[in-house]
Amino acid sequence: MIRRFIIGIDLGGTNLKCALLDNGLKIKAKNSFSTRSFNSKQKLLQGIADFITTFILDQGLKRSEILGVGIGLPGPVDTFKGIVHFLPNIPGWREVNVKKNLDLKTKLPVFIDNDAKLMCLAESSSGAAAGYSNVLCLTLGTGVGGGLIINNSLYRGKDNAAGEFGHVPINETGPLCGCGSKACLEAYIGNNAILKEAHKIFGPDISLEEISKMANNNDLLSVKFWRDVGKKLGLALSGVINLLNLDAVVIGGGVACAGRPLFESVKETILLRSMRVQAKRVRVFKAKLGTDAGVIGAGYLVKERLGK
Amino acid sequence: MIRRFIIGIDLGGTNLKCALLDNGLKIKAKNSFSTRSFNSKQKLLQGIADFITTFILDQGLKRSEILGVGIGLPGPVDTFKGIVHFLPNIPGWREVNVKKNLDLKTKLPVFIDNDAKLMCLAESSSGAAAGYSNVLCLTLGTGVGGGLIINNSLYRGKDNAAGEFGHVPINETGPLCGCGSKACLEAYIGNNAILKEAHKIFGPDISLEEISKMANNNDLLSVKFWRDVGKKLGLALSGVINLLNLDAVVIGGGVACAGRPLFESVKETILLRSMRVQAKRVRVFKAKLGTDAGVIGAGYLVKERLGK
Repeated sequence: MIRRFIIGIDLGGTNLKCALLDNGLKIKAKNSFSTRSFNSKQKLLQGIADFITTFILDQGLKRSEILGVGIGLPGPVDTFKGIVHFLPNIPGWREVNVKKNLDLKTKLPVFIDNDAKLMCLAESSSGAAAGYSNVLCLTLGTGVGGGLIINNSLYRGKDNAAGEFGHVPINETGPLCGCGSKACLEAYIGNNAILKEAHKIFGPDISLEEISKMANNNDLLSVKFWRDVGKKLGLALSGVINLLNLDAVVIGGGVACAGRPLFESVKETILLRSMRVQAKRVRVFKAKLGTDAGVIGAGYLVKERLGK
Repeated sequence: MIRRFIIGIDLGGTNLKCALLDNGLKIKAKNSFSTRSFNSKQKLLQGIADFITTFILDQGLKRSEILGVGIGLPGPVDTFKGIVHFLPNIPGWREVNVKKNLDLKTKLPVFIDNDAKLMCLAESSSGAAAGYSNVLCLTLGTGVGGGLIINNSLYRGKDNAAGEFGHVPINETGPLCGCGSKACLEAYIGNNAILKEAHKIFGPDISLEEISKMANNNDLLSVKFWRDVGKKLGLALSGVINLLNLDAVVIGGGVACAGRPLFESVKETILLRSMRVQAKRVRVFKAKLGTDAGVIGAGYLVKERLGK
């Protein structure tokens, strides 16, 4: 029997998304479950294994038809050893060998990586930046995560820690950042920071989704709000674009829904602050695969690692 | 007859350095000449060709023993077409096909590249960062130039414009930069900027060399002066280190002679402002090949391009 399907999983802070992918990494089926009820690491790992087994059976498949399982996790990961160093938003995970644990439980080859890296693999392979060689992919959320494609391959760095675009400083001094430094981009445009700013301007009950909606209806204050976010993002991008002569930047995550005011401001800032050749080269795209990027990227990881 | 020598050339704003390199890129002979008397592009190109021919004869060699000629130039270059886009410090050069011109004149295969990139090739191959995979090499001078080694190869970007570390902004707003932007690192720590600052502190007759000497003799004001430069450099480095999970940074150029106060301040700032994993990984080195880096890098370029 030919192994021709891949399971892609995207583990978030509150739920797990799972997809059955064919060999071309098209999604054939999806399911998800809330991880809130699993109050320990061991229970969650068993829950994931059980979910995978049931998911395969539900699709009328046998385990022998599955090439492997890819899992994206929201934190720093040793992708080659399969170890999660820690998960900022899921307490209790420290140096957990997820691969070994789930290899045994599922009897399938399991591969793990950081979720922003997998989003980057997906968007640069079959998403917004397909066909571009040197790409920075961003996810704008509570954290500002990133992944880098260099010469058509995911670039990891020696510790698989490359891509931390959220921790590029945009000022010598400024607000404290969760990483221990200050004035990092994330300290200005991470969800918590912009929500705090939003509350000052629009009152305590506003949500970022509402400001996005208002901006798209040309509410001037909301447009200015997102333009200010775009300016800061564009400035950090300008430095990276000058340094890496990038072909493309892909912006995803919740904040990317702010749409035109944000993207226009990012592009204007790049034109103002980047060097001529670099600014002319780079294209800025909105992420295309949306919430599917994680599971599709997990599929690419399995293919990359199995050399398929 | 076996072609076993390479000519490496480093063209600066005021003089040209030339070296005969063996197959292992060891320097066998050196010479140089002032380019000041050549008042046109055509005369300088003819002067370079004549100098190469004479240099080969002076070494008792035949042209047939020379594998090729590598030339580093102080500006943006299309290395594959052999075209110089322009040279900020040598007027009159715009879209000049140096390769074609000198191929014909010298009857040798000529390859050209940006000088900071060649310095980077040399320092990462046989200099301070030999054995490291992901390296940023800097030259601190009038400009703050850079080159990047990614996964053991020189990373160029689509337009061969990668490496412009001097144009990473370190503040949202700040002094105007020669590139048209503002608050770029170069606008703070390029020679002109720090000399201006030095004149305010030490009077109009001071030179950067003197402040380096005084700092190395523990003069407090001079130490503080270089520590401030190191802080700004370290901040820009922190962002790049977070993004690229670099193994090594090599700092060269005149300002690197400031020595300990500068390097200590750079390292302290990286520890303060970079993420834990990235900060632990990266090593900061002083460039090792000094003024020879350019000609040696030009030799690596010839080898790279001829696949030797």
